[in-house]
Amino acid sequence: MTKKRIGAVERLFPMPCPIVVGGTLDEADGLACAWINVVSSTPPTVAMGLRESRHTLELIRRTGTFTVNIPTASMAAVVDYFGITPGRTTDKFAASGLTLSPSALVEAPVIDQCPYNLECRVTEEVMVGVYHVILGEIVEVHAEESVLTEGDQVDVGALDPLVYIAGAREYRRLGEKVADAFSVGRSVGE
Amino acid sequence: MTKKRIGAVERLFPMPCPIVVGGTLDEADGLACAWINVVSSTPPTVAMGLRESRHTLELIRRTGTFTVNIPTASMAAVVDYFGITPGRTTDKFAASGLTLSPSALVEAPVIDQCPYNLECRVTEEVMVGVYHVILGEIVEVHAEESVLTEGDQVDVGALDPLVYIAGAREYRRLGEKVADAFSVGRSVGE
Repeated sequence: MTKKRIGAVERLFPMPCPIVVGGTLDEADGLACAWINVVSSTPPTVAMGLRESRHTLELIRRTGTFTVNIPTASMAAVVDYFGITPGRTTDKFAASGLTLSPSALVEAPVIDQCPYNLECRVTEEVMVGVYHVILGEIVEVHAEESVLTEGDQVDVGALDPLVYIAGAREYRRLGEKVADAFSVGRSVGE
Repeated sequence: MTKKRIGAVERLFPMPCPIVVGGTLDEADGLACAWINVVSSTPPTVAMGLRESRHTLELIRRTGTFTVNIPTASMAAVVDYFGITPGRTTDKFAASGLTLSPSALVEAPVIDQCPYNLECRVTEEVMVGVYHVILGEIVEVHAEESVLTEGDQVDVGALDPLVYIAGAREYRRLGEKVADAFSVGRSVGE
């Protein structure tokens, strides 16, 4: 096996691809954001990187809240639309047909068509070059009943979440289960 | 479609599952970290959440550097082992058979068996409850020649990266391509 140095590229695999929404029911904007993940469980917190110039960031700051809306793989086209369309001059919701509903605890609304939605409250902002790393506490989560098992666990096969592949700039879906976590590693090294 | 509120759970879908390594060639430790992603391209930066008590965090602080090693789906067992085994009392590398090589620019070494490795330098640490959000500038990336296309793009089908599913606690692999990003959304709303 021979490895090659390919320079300081901002890519790891895989990435999620939610639509992040800021604003209110009356004035909302959203963007496709692959640069997001959970970073803490106590308190439950996400971190995401947004370019300073994004309209959605402006709206997030107005209420100090945002939502993270996980799309299904079948929603690739509309997610891409939210990624490539400038929100300052276009009402992406009106144009795309995606609709919004009130959140339970925060001002930013959730997207009806996305079966899994996180409500978040901004707790910290860190500048990294021209990007802002927004930390947001997860205060509530909504899930379609059709993607929940008994016990309110997410059935990720039913959710069929969209996956983003950096570099190749392609959307994928999840594949087959490989192993159980916190289990398959028990016999290693024995 | 009816949605249900399931509380403030720290889950989004999907997550990556690299092994993050701290320390040096002589004294290294690593852990499986699903809570990591890119958050900026200028400078290229990752953010990850680590529990304060982790041995690997102690080693990361010693040199101010770490590496992010992307495993293939076939490495699920050894990744799980790195997630569930305490590094203070066990040399996980000796026990698992994974081996290390020097990085090009940072003290923390890279894992030979992982076909894609990011070298990172810590630029900021933010406390979030009992977690530390570590921001690290990506200073170099290594990739197996077998996972690169001409032009040094990653062929993610060849890489076959391990995917982590929170809640269900399972490992998956990537599935099929759904669409081209920055392209499939162009016709939405027209």
